[in-house]
Amino acid sequence: MTSPSLPAVCVVWQTAMIILFGVFIRYDEESDPHWLEHKKLNNISSDIENDFYFRYPSFQDVHVMIFVGFGFLMTFLKRYSFGGVGFNFLIAAFGLQWALLMQGWFHSLDYTDGKIKIGIENLINADFCVAGCLIAYGALLGKVSPVQLMVLTLFGITLFAVEEYIILNLIHARDAGGSMVIHTFGAYYGLSISWMLYRPNLDQSSRLQGSVYHSDVFATIGTLFLWMFWPSFNSAITDHGDGQHRAVINTYLALASTVLTTVAMSSLFQKHGKLDMVHVQNSTLAGGVAVGTAAEFMLMPYGSLIVGFCCGVISTLGYIYISPFLEKYMKVQDTCGVHNLHAMPGVIGGIVGAITAAAASESVYGHEGLVKTFDFEGAFEKMEPTTQGGHQAGGLCVALIFGIGGGMIVGAILRLPIWGDPADDNCFDDETYWEVRGREFILF
Amino acid sequence: MTSPSLPAVCVVWQTAMIILFGVFIRYDEESDPHWLEHKKLNNISSDIENDFYFRYPSFQDVHVMIFVGFGFLMTFLKRYSFGGVGFNFLIAAFGLQWALLMQGWFHSLDYTDGKIKIGIENLINADFCVAGCLIAYGALLGKVSPVQLMVLTLFGITLFAVEEYIILNLIHARDAGGSMVIHTFGAYYGLSISWMLYRPNLDQSSRLQGSVYHSDVFATIGTLFLWMFWPSFNSAITDHGDGQHRAVINTYLALASTVLTTVAMSSLFQKHGKLDMVHVQNSTLAGGVAVGTAAEFMLMPYGSLIVGFCCGVISTLGYIYISPFLEKYMKVQDTCGVHNLHAMPGVIGGIVGAITAAAASESVYGHEGLVKTFDFEGAFEKMEPTTQGGHQAGGLCVALIFGIGGGMIVGAILRLPIWGDPADDNCFDDETYWEVRGREFILF
Amino acid sequence: MTSPSLPAVCVVWQTAMIILFGVFIRYDEESDPHWLEHKKLNNISSDIENDFYFRYPSFQDVHVMIFVGFGFLMTFLKRYSFGGVGFNFLIAAFGLQWALLMQGWFHSLDYTDGKIKIGIENLINADFCVAGCLIAYGALLGKVSPVQLMVLTLFGITLFAVEEYIILNLIHARDAGGSMVIHTFGAYYGLSISWMLYRPNLDQSSRLQGSVYHSDVFATIGTLFLWMFWPSFNSAITDHGDGQHRAVINTYLALASTVLTTVAMSSLFQKHGKLDMVHVQNSTLAGGVAVGTAAEFMLMPYGSLIVGFCCGVISTLGYIYISPFLEKYMKVQDTCGVHNLHAMPGVIGGIVGAITAAAASESVYGHEGLVKTFDFEGAFEKMEPTTQGGHQAGGLCVALIFGIGGGMIVGAILRLPIWGDPADDNCFDDETYWEVRGREFILF
Repeated sequence: MTSPSLPAVCVVWQTAMIILFGVFIRYDEESDPHWLEHKKLNNISSDIENDFYFRYPSFQDVHVMIFVGFGFLMTFLKRYSFGGVGFNFLIAAFGLQWALLMQGWFHSLDYTDGKIKIGIENLINADFCVAGCLIAYGALLGKVSPVQLMVLTLFGITLFAVEEYIILNLIHARDAGGSMVIHTFGAYYGLSISWMLYRPNLDQSSRLQGSVYHSDVFATIGTLFLWMFWPSFNSAITDHGDGQHRAVINTYLALASTVLTTVAMSSLFQKHGKLDMVHVQNSTLAGGVAVGTAAEFMLMPYGSLIVGFCCGVISTLGYIYISPFLEKYMKVQDTCGVHNLHAMPGVIGGIVGAITAAAASESVYGHEGLVKTFDFEGAFEKMEPTTQGGHQAGGLCVALIFGIGGGMIVGAILRLPIWGDPADDNCFDDETYWEVRGREFILF
Repeated sequence: MTSPSLPAVCVVWQTAMIILFGVFIRYDEESDPHWLEHKKLNNISSDIENDFYFRYPSFQDVHVMIFVGFGFLMTFLKRYSFGGVGFNFLIAAFGLQWALLMQGWFHSLDYTDGKIKIGIENLINADFCVAGCLIAYGALLGKVSPVQLMVLTLFGITLFAVEEYIILNLIHARDAGGSMVIHTFGAYYGLSISWMLYRPNLDQSSRLQGSVYHSDVFATIGTLFLWMFWPSFNSAITDHGDGQHRAVINTYLALASTVLTTVAMSSLFQKHGKLDMVHVQNSTLAGGVAVGTAAEFMLMPYGSLIVGFCCGVISTLGYIYISPFLEKYMKVQDTCGVHNLHAMPGVIGGIVGAITAAAASESVYGHEGLVKTFDFEGAFEKMEPTTQGGHQAGGLCVALIFGIGGGMIVGAILRLPIWGDPADDNCFDDETYWEVRGREFILF
Repeated sequence: MTSPSLPAVCVVWQTAMIILFGVFIRYDEESDPHWLEHKKLNNISSDIENDFYFRYPSFQDVHVMIFVGFGFLMTFLKRYSFGGVGFNFLIAAFGLQWALLMQGWFHSLDYTDGKIKIGIENLINADFCVAGCLIAYGALLGKVSPVQLMVLTLFGITLFAVEEYIILNLIHARDAGGSMVIHTFGAYYGLSISWMLYRPNLDQSSRLQGSVYHSDVFATIGTLFLWMFWPSFNSAITDHGDGQHRAVINTYLALASTVLTTVAMSSLFQKHGKLDMVHVQNSTLAGGVAVGTAAEFMLMPYGSLIVGFCCGVISTLGYIYISPFLEKYMKVQDTCGVHNLHAMPGVIGGIVGAITAAAASESVYGHEGLVKTFDFEGAFEKMEPTTQGGHQAGGLCVALIFGIGGGMIVGAILRLPIWGDPADDNCFDDETYWEVRGREFILF
């Protein structure tokens, strides 16, 4: 039985969104019909200088990653494909509205009229913000009710907006692809909640904790759309020009490298040398996570390959050794293995970013390149690369603290016996929350 | 048995296309190799001012919506997935050729040489034109032969081109995302044909009128690609600059809002509060339809959320209450529920557009913004927003008349007993028209 | 049992890639942080003139074709979907790294410092290069081990880079969409290897040589993403401006036309007039292959339709008559029918390109258009279109020679009994190389 309050939560929260948007959200100058006058006043010669046209293709790629990428990656369970893609859809659709407000208050508030002015960059950032919560959902897949997911998203987005502001604006860390801000935070947020919601008798659903042939193929759709569009993810909000271009190249290379070492480890450590689809679906993406922070830096093409190489190895070994360990001894039940796909690679990405930043020099970047890449302007005009490296490390700590601390608090809230979560023997079962027609999958 | 004439229809019609293209269709100036000389003559400084580069990303998104979006959304039936995606492919491929001709005669005819000059914008418009027929197919899915679909497309494209010309050029209504021109027309065209082709004994195929688990997951692929790329759909042919940007924001928000109320209604009105995948697959898209006309207007972000909110409610209730009513009392058998996804939201979209246009003012748009957004130029230089609102309403009426009237006429043609349509007990069955290997689905 | 050396091959080769990238590969000027200074020195006014922004949307489309398009097209076998999409993923990820090196040595070597400078165009070309090997994989699907595929890719990429250099640079043939360089070469490379690896007792796996209902729907995902994004494929590396625009239009039209004749032939030549999903999945793409070389030329819209028309007919008849003939009498076992989808249409494309080039004239292209389209500059300043036609034909011969000759040599290597290829009764079976959970597919 689904929680009786899901319709109420959806309607009330959507109504609240309408009111808050009515009070706070307006179009920014590029999406306002006064744009023509603005152009003249600011001596802008052509429509093409509108930032919208630079960002839009990447925006759509990121959008696909959020809804098809994350959504289909979570269809792998034999009887929870509806819940995987469907609840992913629900919480992303809610989360992006709340993210526009929360991130808007920090980043896009126009102090002259107290309104948040949104444009294409806000939409991309909202998708990024949502990604953190979807990663957290990966750890909890099949074990929570949709109402719990809505609560997780409400708090997750809020925490995200705060930690993002601290990391990017106060600490002045750079994090183009969000290794720290998105992946480290999101993964530890989800893992902490999972730890708080530990189910000692989850093995009562063990018959449903696995894939069937076709559900594995569906999940591969998610994998591939994440893998292919990850260069857009890591470059979507970087500065135009060389930084954006470099982020694409680095991500493309890191991901290519990860595929080979994932396959190698999967075959090496499985009996009979057979490949495991779980590894190919997930660990092949670890390189994209780990190259997130440093994607716009001078990581160098071979550096990207090295990062990808290591993450393919670590992530796959994580699935083979660490996940069972975490479940058995640490009471962390991690359905999708986000510890291997997001947590460890995210931390690695933060460290790689710190090292790469600390090693930056004018000889490699040029003076202007250094200033632009690391945004050494305003209050940070005199910042040295080595100091920047320290700030990057500080950013990673903040992401960890927010993820773990926030997850424990929200986990405590979600333990209250009011949310209609499924019984231990109903986990991973779409019939709990969905009308299911056709029962072929029960046979297998 | 398939109609014996399908090969003949395909070959004859494709031959006709070749002849007509040979006589009428040429490249436009941007795709002609004299472009370099044209640039010099017109003092155009850079390739980037080529409209092609503004439009191409949206074009590809729309293209994905037409073939994967509509195609996979129609794979939900347990034994008609081939027909869903395959016939969608066939009629779209034919329809876009015919649309280039029909729309070209109205919009891209070069009177100096009597040729239709095509470029990227014509390709987008052809995809739009095809969308109308694919919507109509949704109402008829599983009950008609491929030859009938080809006939439906031939007439549908023709009717579309005429009503589009009347609505956009003669009446001077604006319809960026085609709430009226595409969705209202297409849905009523299909529903009227379905009414003309009413099958009293369709329940003889009732064993096949439903989904199985995996076919529902396939259909979700269609849903998500439609949902994600709808901002491109509603903005693909708007003016560059703020209008295009605003159309993206409004559509993104309306769709997000629709998801929450769809989930709420689905859970509220089903027994045990369970969610129904049919609603999640379809009603979540209603907000994109309803915001189509007004997407480029100053609908405001909260306005978009309100439109999405209402359409999620109405569309889901449509699936629960109106579709059974239509089938039982009005003799309209609507396989995919296009009445709920396209017809009602399309009409709402037309009304929202009329109201938003009537409420426009220079204080909100600025003088230049108002002129540009509503194209108050040439013969319409002195048009007032309130008058424009009336014209919008007129456009909606034309779309309804063409849809219903055209559908009844074409339906009468399709009733002729020559088209090889399936028997009542062979509807919704791929074996009628396809070689089907592997019979697992028969078990369920 | 998988070859015991797969992990070793992956780790050693990936390590080699890291070393070679460390020695040879650097960012090009647009992705280097000295870009800002470069811009000033070269008086470039705006970021938008960065080639990156012209190429990026097409790059992502091509990327989707490589991984989802080719990958899912090869999921059609009832028990080899993992191998289809998974090994496609593996060899593409390896191949693109090797391609960056091989193509880089020929095309992007900076002689001042001996480094290969890469940017977005190299990434697109690497994807193209990989496509040749994926086509070859199509002929061998289900019959080779992953280690054999890695070897096939290593040599295939190398051969590709050499033939591409000869065809495009030495012979000065034009081949925007790679009808010759990619499709003809890749298909004959794979067919020759298949001939060398002929298995007389392959019918021992005949129970697995076919599709089931859902695997056919999965394959259609691949078909559609290839079909939809083919205009990007054929235009991704053409000159900006009219050539790119024209390539999109020609490809769009050729593909539309192919769909209709494929359906016609499929229905006409099957018993009971039923459609065969194999044809719809594959032959509908033949027009995109065949229009590849001439896509940027003045093929004219009706010319594109004619090319598509013919290829739909030929490719479908190929599946019905030629493939069985090749298997029975020529000892070529072609799992996916690449002879029908790539080899014949590729050769046709080369011929169409030669004719279209030979027929070019200043009256049609204008003087500047002719020079730009055919790159009649430098050493080729005085080239005549008729001569160009001859060079195009020469290019086609080189592609054939490299494909057939290279394939026979590599096939001889792959016949060595050390690669762990599957036994005749284990072909087309994922259980040979993958952990397979859930066994529903065994029932059918």
